[in-house]
Amino acid sequence: MPNTKAFAASDAKTPLAPFSFDRRAPGDYDVAIDIKFCGICHTDIHQARDEWGGSVYPMVPGHEIAGIVTSVGGKVTKFKPGQHVGVGCFVDSCRTCTECRKGLEQYCAVETVFTYNSKDKDGHNTYGGYSGKIVVDENYVLRIPENLPLDASAPLLCAGITLYSPLRHWGAGPGRKVAIIGLGGLGHMGVKLAHAMGAEVTVLSQSLKKLGDGKRLGADHFYATSDPETFTTLKGHFDLIVNTVPAANEWDRFVGLLATDGALVMVGVPDEPVAVNGFPLITKRRTIAGSMIGGIAETQEMLDFCGRHNIASDVEVIPMQQVNEAFERVLKGDVRYRFVIDCGTL
Amino acid sequence: MPNTKAFAASDAKTPLAPFSFDRRAPGDYDVAIDIKFCGICHTDIHQARDEWGGSVYPMVPGHEIAGIVTSVGGKVTKFKPGQHVGVGCFVDSCRTCTECRKGLEQYCAVETVFTYNSKDKDGHNTYGGYSGKIVVDENYVLRIPENLPLDASAPLLCAGITLYSPLRHWGAGPGRKVAIIGLGGLGHMGVKLAHAMGAEVTVLSQSLKKLGDGKRLGADHFYATSDPETFTTLKGHFDLIVNTVPAANEWDRFVGLLATDGALVMVGVPDEPVAVNGFPLITKRRTIAGSMIGGIAETQEMLDFCGRHNIASDVEVIPMQQVNEAFERVLKGDVRYRFVIDCGTL
Repeated sequence: MPNTKAFAASDAKTPLAPFSFDRRAPGDYDVAIDIKFCGICHTDIHQARDEWGGSVYPMVPGHEIAGIVTSVGGKVTKFKPGQHVGVGCFVDSCRTCTECRKGLEQYCAVETVFTYNSKDKDGHNTYGGYSGKIVVDENYVLRIPENLPLDASAPLLCAGITLYSPLRHWGAGPGRKVAIIGLGGLGHMGVKLAHAMGAEVTVLSQSLKKLGDGKRLGADHFYATSDPETFTTLKGHFDLIVNTVPAANEWDRFVGLLATDGALVMVGVPDEPVAVNGFPLITKRRTIAGSMIGGIAETQEMLDFCGRHNIASDVEVIPMQQVNEAFERVLKGDVRYRFVIDCGTL
Repeated sequence: MPNTKAFAASDAKTPLAPFSFDRRAPGDYDVAIDIKFCGICHTDIHQARDEWGGSVYPMVPGHEIAGIVTSVGGKVTKFKPGQHVGVGCFVDSCRTCTECRKGLEQYCAVETVFTYNSKDKDGHNTYGGYSGKIVVDENYVLRIPENLPLDASAPLLCAGITLYSPLRHWGAGPGRKVAIIGLGGLGHMGVKLAHAMGAEVTVLSQSLKKLGDGKRLGADHFYATSDPETFTTLKGHFDLIVNTVPAANEWDRFVGLLATDGALVMVGVPDEPVAVNGFPLITKRRTIAGSMIGGIAETQEMLDFCGRHNIASDVEVIPMQQVNEAFERVLKGDVRYRFVIDCGTL
């Protein structure tokens, strides 16, 4: 049973603090990984603080894991020691339902085993990537292209796939007009990916503060949603709008920016229901939809795509000891664009 | 200028009454049609009574038109006298925008010229099918298969295509579970069409009152939405739900009945905004969408499909003089399943 250091939340109110625990002994199909880096996702904060309910403590957050294989079980065929690998938001699923068979394990009809704050099939709580080691079934481990820096690759495992999947599913590519609402950890990945896919990319940000960054990341256009003019100029313009901002909950305004057959896709949602007017949906066959991360095969496809296009996240690497301060800065939007914990500092 | 008898609304408050007017002199590309039958759509009532605003009087409603060609212009190639033809919700569009070029004239980016209560390209108000004759550009005239009864075919031009288009667009067919909310003029066509496409069809009706009819029309299953049990039994069940009932505005409850990648598609919408919870959209990549009638090519495809499958509407044929009484009965849901006016009674 490999023991590992970690940082854990002991309850909803206390800052994360040093913790240690045993990972399971690697089985025949397991990959043992030294975690080098782990991204900080807003979800980590929601769950550490029990803002969605049902949190189980102690909790070791972290589902943007990048590391190096240290050993593999006797029946593992896909990985070998020394490889750069990633682990994303989930580490298992039922493997037999319609969704799992389609490679949509994130929507598993039985139960997706999330990387932390979830129950593994053996009944134990799962612990995430704010730790030094992890043991994961080879079918839920991803290859990280060797040309990508490992620290900046960590956020691809959640932020990257969260944007890649809807962009692919709703056909971002040449000749398609794509908007990304919000230029944060998720949004900045959306801009890079949509641009690399060949779409015409527009950032819809609250202000023009990040305009320079947006253009540098690959945006063709940049508009402020605080300017009412934006909503007349861009009326009926987009084939796809991906909304990364839960607070951007005036969905009707964004629906108005969709062309015929356009889709407004949420990857972050407000806690409260949103009032939606049906008429603008009908008159242009528009859709409102949601999307959650991506399946294993699609996540691998995304990583390979990023390798080919030399895409990773813009990151600020911090030692584990600064995780609580980083949480506060995430809440203030004070990060360009993702915190990544150097797990070697544990 | 062919003169024609009609029934018209002279304002929002007065019952429809006899009226006569001149149709335009048929041009080179026009088809002159003797209207034999015209269906009564709920939209006719909304517009005759100015419930959506902007109504122009006198108004001759009617966009479910079935008739026989009497003459054609010198350059008409698609039609000849004696043919059974139909005219639906629109009689022209810009013909050059992206939507028109894709055969989505109903979503024309410039202006769809609706069959009544609209402005034709020559600047005149359009008058609909509660009349004896109509003159329409051949590109906006549909062939009605000769094996279908003309009276029961009239409602295909709106009710039929309104259901056919979303069923096709969202892939109703073998192996797909489709629900139709509401068994009225629209819904009963949805059941017939989805059944003929090979889908497994469920009716979601307020009560079980129409269960026998539903089964006869082709439904495999029938559930009452007034029974809360329905929403637990059918949780996560459907690939597609088409909502024909504006009053069925608890969209969240219906979203809960969708499987992964399922779509809830509105073809009728409530006047008021609807509160929508984003979370169930995200966790199963579900969509909420709208759909409005169908394009010309798709309407022809629908009519040909109906011809092959011997599908028409269940109708109650009435003389024009009973149109006001029929309006009242439509509002009470007292029709099985569509009123069709015999325009020969004018």
